[in-house]
Amino acid sequence: MASMATLFLNLKTPNSSHSFPKTHKTHFTYNLNISISVLPNKQKRRNNQQLRISSGLIEPDGGKLVELFVKENQKDEKKKEAKLIPRIKLSRIDLEWVHVLSEGWASPLSGFMRESQFLQTLHFNSLRLDDGSIVNMSVPIVLAIDDSQRQRIGESTRVALVDSGDNTVAILKNIEIYKHNKEERIARTWGTTAPGLPYVDKAITNAGNWLIGGDLEVIERIKYSDGLDRFRLSPTELREEFTKRNADAVFAFQLRNPVHNGHALLMTDTRKRLLDMGYKNPVLLLHPLGGYTKADDVPLSWRMKQHEKVLEDGVLDPETTVVAIFPSPMHYAGPTEVQWHAKARINAGANFYIVGRDPAGMGHPVEKRDLYDADHGKKVLSMAPGLERLNILPFKVAAYDKTQGKMAFFDPSRPQDFIFISGTKMRTLAKNKENPPDGFMCPGGWKVLVDYYDSMVVSENGRVPDAVPV
Amino acid sequence: MASMATLFLNLKTPNSSHSFPKTHKTHFTYNLNISISVLPNKQKRRNNQQLRISSGLIEPDGGKLVELFVKENQKDEKKKEAKLIPRIKLSRIDLEWVHVLSEGWASPLSGFMRESQFLQTLHFNSLRLDDGSIVNMSVPIVLAIDDSQRQRIGESTRVALVDSGDNTVAILKNIEIYKHNKEERIARTWGTTAPGLPYVDKAITNAGNWLIGGDLEVIERIKYSDGLDRFRLSPTELREEFTKRNADAVFAFQLRNPVHNGHALLMTDTRKRLLDMGYKNPVLLLHPLGGYTKADDVPLSWRMKQHEKVLEDGVLDPETTVVAIFPSPMHYAGPTEVQWHAKARINAGANFYIVGRDPAGMGHPVEKRDLYDADHGKKVLSMAPGLERLNILPFKVAAYDKTQGKMAFFDPSRPQDFIFISGTKMRTLAKNKENPPDGFMCPGGWKVLVDYYDSMVVSENGRVPDAVPV
Repeated sequence: MASMATLFLNLKTPNSSHSFPKTHKTHFTYNLNISISVLPNKQKRRNNQQLRISSGLIEPDGGKLVELFVKENQKDEKKKEAKLIPRIKLSRIDLEWVHVLSEGWASPLSGFMRESQFLQTLHFNSLRLDDGSIVNMSVPIVLAIDDSQRQRIGESTRVALVDSGDNTVAILKNIEIYKHNKEERIARTWGTTAPGLPYVDKAITNAGNWLIGGDLEVIERIKYSDGLDRFRLSPTELREEFTKRNADAVFAFQLRNPVHNGHALLMTDTRKRLLDMGYKNPVLLLHPLGGYTKADDVPLSWRMKQHEKVLEDGVLDPETTVVAIFPSPMHYAGPTEVQWHAKARINAGANFYIVGRDPAGMGHPVEKRDLYDADHGKKVLSMAPGLERLNILPFKVAAYDKTQGKMAFFDPSRPQDFIFISGTKMRTLAKNKENPPDGFMCPGGWKVLVDYYDSMVVSENGRVPDAVPV
Repeated sequence: MASMATLFLNLKTPNSSHSFPKTHKTHFTYNLNISISVLPNKQKRRNNQQLRISSGLIEPDGGKLVELFVKENQKDEKKKEAKLIPRIKLSRIDLEWVHVLSEGWASPLSGFMRESQFLQTLHFNSLRLDDGSIVNMSVPIVLAIDDSQRQRIGESTRVALVDSGDNTVAILKNIEIYKHNKEERIARTWGTTAPGLPYVDKAITNAGNWLIGGDLEVIERIKYSDGLDRFRLSPTELREEFTKRNADAVFAFQLRNPVHNGHALLMTDTRKRLLDMGYKNPVLLLHPLGGYTKADDVPLSWRMKQHEKVLEDGVLDPETTVVAIFPSPMHYAGPTEVQWHAKARINAGANFYIVGRDPAGMGHPVEKRDLYDADHGKKVLSMAPGLERLNILPFKVAAYDKTQGKMAFFDPSRPQDFIFISGTKMRTLAKNKENPPDGFMCPGGWKVLVDYYDSMVVSENGRVPDAVPV
């Protein structure tokens, strides 16, 4: 994995001047002179000394990136305070949301949502700020508590949030407790209440009947000690990296699947299109989602191994690619969620967003059909309030071209020459140790996938499952 | 009923000059010089000659009121054209929506929604116009067709809409047909998919699997010939009336229940508050909903009789009250629907909107609780995109004050003195021919309610139903 880490740790461009992106249509009228934090080295970061410089990257939502960390010299005091106030134990997904909030991915949110933010998210997929401007916010970022927790909190205006080992993670202050109407939350977020939605089963059905909002004070950066923390770059760090690289356009590619050559073709082609538009140095943010995913998705660690091989094999150019992990958990909420995926990347400095077919979609949990219309994600994204500044790049359909023996953009004039290999088909081939057509994925990347399914077989108590039908 | 009709037909103020309302905070930047149509007399109206004058009333959404009627001299041609193109038969609710659209209540919609409008409504409760401005639009106004209708339409770019008697109502042109995902529509509109939602049972469950959008050309004004058509004033007619009356503020009261003295107190008090704010002539739009309502609501004709009595008895001042019927069908979609109720009244000239507890709410169809949090309607309305120009007036709670023997604003310092009489309790009393406390409702109005329930008993084949428990 070391080779991948070097992608962004060592690739400092010699020229540190800043180039400015093209002006894009915007429906916003910011009068602020935006600054972002640039942290010249780790020592300074630790000391919380921040050099503020102007930057050519897209402005964060609300005009400034909201980081929610406690200052270094207040940490001890906050930890002591946390011992004296009611405590709430965080689930893994709760912790992932603290991570998301703490680093400013959801800027300008300053903590778990209060009711007015929750309602705006459910009804409008956006929040109105005090100055009247609108930012996108499509998925509720909320913390549920049950009756007994609510009772324990009593009249306290703040609570301590602790991890599974009872370590203090954060303090939530100026709290507001309000009803958690799960049915309404689910219906408005997913457009269905059918049983079997993965995030609902995991994080909502058995959650408490109250939500607690407030302002977060996070003690330390969230780490998972899984060998992948070095890929978990915050929006501030990503902005630094793009600035160092002299990026004048940043295009984000959200994914939760292995990268095949069709993806790679798309990303390479996007860079070409941006160069044609006049940008001098478009940089790709290859940004796998790192939070909760459903059981049949390929786990993050294996995906990162696969992405590493794809870069080693030269399918993507390390010079113009930044690989990092997006810490959000996955909702599988289709057109609603794709807005969140895009909005968070604005905060990380991306001004172009590649949107695929059926983004954040899945099969309907009960009926035999896709849960969302495959085109709705792209359409909703293009109309979403608060995302007017972001340039949406619809995915061109790539498929395996038998005449060229490689992945190519689908040519509707000769459909007979193309084979479509879905994610399901790809996984099935790997499970069955069959090979995809040559040129579908680089061999190193494919081997990672086969190894992953091998490891699953071993972990299933030695039982070798039946081969999956293709 | 004649006395009621005279309320707005004869009460022309002698002074025809226009007064201008106070400037309200707005997030919109209209550069248009808005005109509204003023129709000096019926003859001119018939001839479609419109005098355009500037007005002090609130601007319609999108800057101008969009009426969708065919010009007088094109009617015959359009009727002939309608015979030559595929036909769609409208249900009663479909017809009510044609009514709503044709008169501009949903301005700037020019017809049944196309997919991009449908998606924006479901996800954002608002529409972005070509100039980048936002208007509120929270309930889908759509027309469903089934597979066989879709097949019959074939490649036609227009269809004729006909009523139950096969009379041509309108032509829908530049059509777009797209999927009707009922589950998603219901979940996102109602925040639940529980069986038993009245509008869903009536108009969605058995509707076709396709939606057809397009631009409406409506042949004639929609009439129902039920003796109430004269109360069905269009937004243009209401704006004329408010202008004639020299209104410098218009406050709308949406209702679908009989008016009791608590309502009247609230409306009278609102006028006082507006006078205190400096308005010279605030006019009340008492605006009962006239479209589809659920079976256990009091029917429109009885409600209109009841409202008439309330005005006859002097509970409301006819000089400053306009009574008219709002033609929309009822969704019972709580916080989502209240936005529609408010937005439509902007188009009719109202710049103040009174919002009650649990507006457009009902009991959960399955669980023993209200479907919506009683405060959410008010909160959502106050934050809704596109309604920034509207002044929201939260309902003060009125209850029966035993010490005064009349309806009064609830005084939390002496709760023991108040009796709360819910709509359910009111209906139950009337059904059982019991009297409410003196001063709850004017005697004439109460008698109408009792008569209504009497008439139901007679209509139920002579079976006298059991008295309902209070």
